Amino acid sequence: MAEFKDKSVNLLKSKYAKRLYTEVKDLPIIDYHCHLSPKEIYEDVPFDNIGEMWLGGDHYKWRLMRAAGIEEKYITGDASWWDKFFRFAKAAGTAYGNPIKDWCALELGFFFGIYTPLNEATAKDIWDRANKVILSQKLSPRKLIRMANVEYIATTDDPCDDLKYHDMIAQLAKRKAKVVPSFRVDNLVLARAEGYGEYISKLGAASGVEIVDIVSLKVAILNRMDYFVARGCKFSDVGVEGFPNRVAQENEAGETFKKLIAKEEVDDFAYNGFWGYMYVFLAKAYKERGIVQQWHLAVTRNSNSVMLEQLGRDAGFDCVGDAFEVKYVKNIIDKSNSIGGLPKTIIYTLNPTMYYPLATLCGAFRDVVMGISWWFCDHKRGMYETLQTLTELGHISSLIGMLTDSRSFLSYTRHDYYRQIVCDFLGSLMEDEDNIYAIEVAKALCYGNAKKLVEENNEL
Amino acid sequence: MAEFKDKSVNLLKSKYAKRLYTEVKDLPIIDYHCHLSPKEIYEDVPFDNIGEMWLGGDHYKWRLMRAAGIEEKYITGDASWWDKFFRFAKAAGTAYGNPIKDWCALELGFFFGIYTPLNEATAKDIWDRANKVILSQKLSPRKLIRMANVEYIATTDDPCDDLKYHDMIAQLAKRKAKVVPSFRVDNLVLARAEGYGEYISKLGAASGVEIVDIVSLKVAILNRMDYFVARGCKFSDVGVEGFPNRVAQENEAGETFKKLIAKEEVDDFAYNGFWGYMYVFLAKAYKERGIVQQWHLAVTRNSNSVMLEQLGRDAGFDCVGDAFEVKYVKNIIDKSNSIGGLPKTIIYTLNPTMYYPLATLCGAFRDVVMGISWWFCDHKRGMYETLQTLTELGHISSLIGMLTDSRSFLSYTRHDYYRQIVCDFLGSLMEDEDNIYAIEVAKALCYGNAKKLVEENNEL
Amino acid sequence: MAEFKDKSVNLLKSKYAKRLYTEVKDLPIIDYHCHLSPKEIYEDVPFDNIGEMWLGGDHYKWRLMRAAGIEEKYITGDASWWDKFFRFAKAAGTAYGNPIKDWCALELGFFFGIYTPLNEATAKDIWDRANKVILSQKLSPRKLIRMANVEYIATTDDPCDDLKYHDMIAQLAKRKAKVVPSFRVDNLVLARAEGYGEYISKLGAASGVEIVDIVSLKVAILNRMDYFVARGCKFSDVGVEGFPNRVAQENEAGETFKKLIAKEEVDDFAYNGFWGYMYVFLAKAYKERGIVQQWHLAVTRNSNSVMLEQLGRDAGFDCVGDAFEVKYVKNIIDKSNSIGGLPKTIIYTLNPTMYYPLATLCGAFRDVVMGISWWFCDHKRGMYETLQTLTELGHISSLIGMLTDSRSFLSYTRHDYYRQIVCDFLGSLMEDEDNIYAIEVAKALCYGNAKKLVEENNEL
Repeated sequence: MAEFKDKSVNLLKSKYAKRLYTEVKDLPIIDYHCHLSPKEIYEDVPFDNIGEMWLGGDHYKWRLMRAAGIEEKYITGDASWWDKFFRFAKAAGTAYGNPIKDWCALELGFFFGIYTPLNEATAKDIWDRANKVILSQKLSPRKLIRMANVEYIATTDDPCDDLKYHDMIAQLAKRKAKVVPSFRVDNLVLARAEGYGEYISKLGAASGVEIVDIVSLKVAILNRMDYFVARGCKFSDVGVEGFPNRVAQENEAGETFKKLIAKEEVDDFAYNGFWGYMYVFLAKAYKERGIVQQWHLAVTRNSNSVMLEQLGRDAGFDCVGDAFEVKYVKNIIDKSNSIGGLPKTIIYTLNPTMYYPLATLCGAFRDVVMGISWWFCDHKRGMYETLQTLTELGHISSLIGMLTDSRSFLSYTRHDYYRQIVCDFLGSLMEDEDNIYAIEVAKALCYGNAKKLVEENNEL
Repeated sequence: MAEFKDKSVNLLKSKYAKRLYTEVKDLPIIDYHCHLSPKEIYEDVPFDNIGEMWLGGDHYKWRLMRAAGIEEKYITGDASWWDKFFRFAKAAGTAYGNPIKDWCALELGFFFGIYTPLNEATAKDIWDRANKVILSQKLSPRKLIRMANVEYIATTDDPCDDLKYHDMIAQLAKRKAKVVPSFRVDNLVLARAEGYGEYISKLGAASGVEIVDIVSLKVAILNRMDYFVARGCKFSDVGVEGFPNRVAQENEAGETFKKLIAKEEVDDFAYNGFWGYMYVFLAKAYKERGIVQQWHLAVTRNSNSVMLEQLGRDAGFDCVGDAFEVKYVKNIIDKSNSIGGLPKTIIYTLNPTMYYPLATLCGAFRDVVMGISWWFCDHKRGMYETLQTLTELGHISSLIGMLTDSRSFLSYTRHDYYRQIVCDFLGSLMEDEDNIYAIEVAKALCYGNAKKLVEENNEL
Repeated sequence: MAEFKDKSVNLLKSKYAKRLYTEVKDLPIIDYHCHLSPKEIYEDVPFDNIGEMWLGGDHYKWRLMRAAGIEEKYITGDASWWDKFFRFAKAAGTAYGNPIKDWCALELGFFFGIYTPLNEATAKDIWDRANKVILSQKLSPRKLIRMANVEYIATTDDPCDDLKYHDMIAQLAKRKAKVVPSFRVDNLVLARAEGYGEYISKLGAASGVEIVDIVSLKVAILNRMDYFVARGCKFSDVGVEGFPNRVAQENEAGETFKKLIAKEEVDDFAYNGFWGYMYVFLAKAYKERGIVQQWHLAVTRNSNSVMLEQLGRDAGFDCVGDAFEVKYVKNIIDKSNSIGGLPKTIIYTLNPTMYYPLATLCGAFRDVVMGISWWFCDHKRGMYETLQTLTELGHISSLIGMLTDSRSFLSYTRHDYYRQIVCDFLGSLMEDEDNIYAIEVAKALCYGNAKKLVEENNEL
């Protein structure tokens, strides 16, 4: 079986693209949104084998295996890591068109020096060679982060989290990458979810504020936000189903909040009003603290009830949500802006049919931008589509850059994927003459703009 | 006028694509969804001329002629077949970008050995040559089916249909293709349509069950379903406007059904509940009988009232429907799955903006897949888009393959169109080394997966 | 810094495309929809400098500058034209993927003979050379129109407008382009807008009809319509947010109208009924007068309240609107058609997710067509997408052709952009043999069909 030449994945089609790539390929990585575990980063336990590394928790790969018809036993069941790895290799080998095929090739090449295409026939050989590298080089979370030249990691954390691992990581000598928390408010706004009252009690305990009404709720939230900021937090996030279609006044929002914590029934109208009120409140608080606001829109969670019961959340049963009306997004943004409370905001959507309304909305507010393709859209065609859409409707220099959004320490190679795509895209639009400008833009999109975002917030 | 070389339509851009195509081009055809008439297959009357063959009932071509500004007289009017054919040839000759141009070229090449491009100038010559072939070779429905190497045909039939032609076809000696009925339930669920009461009476007569309530309705339906299964039925189908946004309990559905057959008014809420109830009931019955469930979504019928009055249904005035919320589709699927009543399900939509939510929904249920581009989407770009979407979001091996969905016996060449596209798509993703896998995938997508679908159901 | 060769923008990829382009590049321009000022055309004041020409009112360019992070002072503020031009040049130089980059290159080449790429480094040189051309050649509105070989200009005018500048232009000797008004009814149907009563009074004054009810309203409208027709009007237009979801009977519409002019509250249901009634009424009146009906759909206006307060309307804060259900569009069209009152209708939408339902709807009515990509969609990829969609779903010969929709006299080069794209698209679909047909189609799409549209109406 022949091996890949030079690179395992090569997306650079023109000489201009190749030239640009030389300028950006070795830039450090700013990962301003991911789901890496600060505990795992701190504890830094070396990995055992590539089966566990790849298949221990990556629901992207689980979905692919299910679509390939592999039994659940070899996905989330009690089969051995080798048995799981072998089935995955088989599925990946014929996963034409799926980005996981490319990502695996990039990971094998970059972290393990393996340039053999992965498939049923090569599985055993790759298993052996990869595991040898893992053992001999003691591959561990921090080792992988160093190898990938990561400079900045913003994890995703609940406002109630004590952030002790972030504190402990900050004490480590020799650490190169800054690891900071992000303020993820899903649990705060999912106010009709079971256990909301308990969550609010937990928030009260964490903040030392007795939460009895919306005023004390806000005090508690700001307390936690400041706690996060003191630990370097510069990003917030929310990624729940739906979007509030109105904004209540404080009085009404307060009434609704009391019902919510008393477990009284709250109808859609009232809930949306409370939810919208919270978004406007949070935005203003972010703005005052130099926190970037991130919205992840149009996701549907846990579509399969049987499997939710069996495996719990985050097991590969989330979906692209239905598009909803962008006028509601405009409503929150315009309200925030009108009261001087619109922070730097990055909007991601899983549903590409929202790109045009959203991207033009971003063009109407200086501080709002659309993020790069998210999750199910995070493949080659999706990246090109996002780049095309955002440059057709806006200015390329406003694009912020790549993030991993991943739970895996191997995913940093996706930055290389993105960088190749950016260079190929720019290369196809270049004339020979203005190389200087294209290089400048490429560097900004691969590193500079994200760096600036992190530093700008520092200046507050 | 020069002639096409080799093939009339060549979509194979790379050497890999060409190589793959040699492996699949001669595979038999499994046409698991079409609108061919079993009566015509049985009677097997030879055709008269290519004008009648092409323009007798093909509303795709009628639309194209209207868009080209041709008078209705030459489309559905009383002009001669030659006059109609000539106008069509003129329109087709300049129909750049429309798949009908390619399909006609493929049909002329494959069935008539004519490789001259069709247009105003070549119309008379092609008319003469094609008609000569029709007469000399006595082209008839079964002759065309044999020429196209068709192995399996699933027609589309109403539950009340007596299927006598299917029975008579089954008795024929020398027939090569299996011709089986499919269970199309549009009339069952369009319960507020005029004549629903009469339809239910007809169903009662066909099943020998007096239908007075929802219990007897279900008995009658299962009776007909078993009647179909006894004749080899393995596919069901529904293709009505809209989708139920809720599922009623049996009590409520029963009340609503009584009102429906009593011609009492039934509001949207009640109707949707009944409709959803029926979908869940049907799904379970399909599952128990190994019948594949097919949903054709987002169609708008008979948009032009004046022309509906004048020409009746299926005359070229249907449209791509508005996208609706995929969460309702999820609702029915998840409910079916939760009660162990989710059969193998293929979902088609006319509205491409639903692809992303639908395809990821399919990824959350092992037995649900999206079908290949349907009707207005069934062109080159549409096919590539479907292949890209489904492989980006799932595993290529789960794609089932082509169907004609056609009323014309000449449409089997669309399988060649599809096969070229599949090979070209795969070819663009191949590396030299894993030919074996790509060949395997190509064969599965062009024949194997559909074959397996038909056979799997046999095992029940 | 090297200069562009031959053409500043070259989109012709195949030899067929290049061949076709020679046939269409010098055809005159029919601009059947634009926002040029008849006053400016009549007064014909020579321009001062390229900064003013480009940045005086072009909110496309303002948006790009904002997205590039340029301060408002240099966009709509009191900075000098040179200061503004310099910032714009800087932004345009790196605006990879944005059509403005190409449009500027085309304008510099065609009107100024400047083939140097525009960017920060070349700004001063281009400023000097362009201004020299402006002064030495006395570039003025009519001069630019002549240079661009424009034959027909349909401006956009309110029904109350006295059209005196159109009359005065018609008296001019030596004018080559016909300049006629179009009937833009936004103010007529935005009946819940502040000042609607005053607007109706103005309409009464303009028509000499005392408007007290819906009957007199209609008399007044027809009076103005005839006034427009007498001045050559052949096009109408509407471009407001939303679309009526129902059509009231005359009685109900009349009641609603009385409330509207009495400033009484009118709910959504009543307003939609009135609005739909007006669309059906207007359509019939257009049909009777040979006026083409144009609908511009799915736009959101003035998304940023702070900037609306500061700069007023048309300042670069409009957005692509949410898609709405095409069944409502069908409703109005089918109603109009059923009463013999469906004029030639061109539908544009800002939201590409509506293309498939809309384009197939057009296929169900002979007199309805979709227009070429509009506004935010009016870039290279958008044009190709529209051409592909419309030819996949209909016949290429029904496409009408390009319009500028612009407020700038320099925008005529967009016709060249469009013509290159049409030729490139057709070139990619041609076989050597039927050149004659392709040339015929290319000419029709670049000039003939628009010409015919204008002349057909003349025949009434």
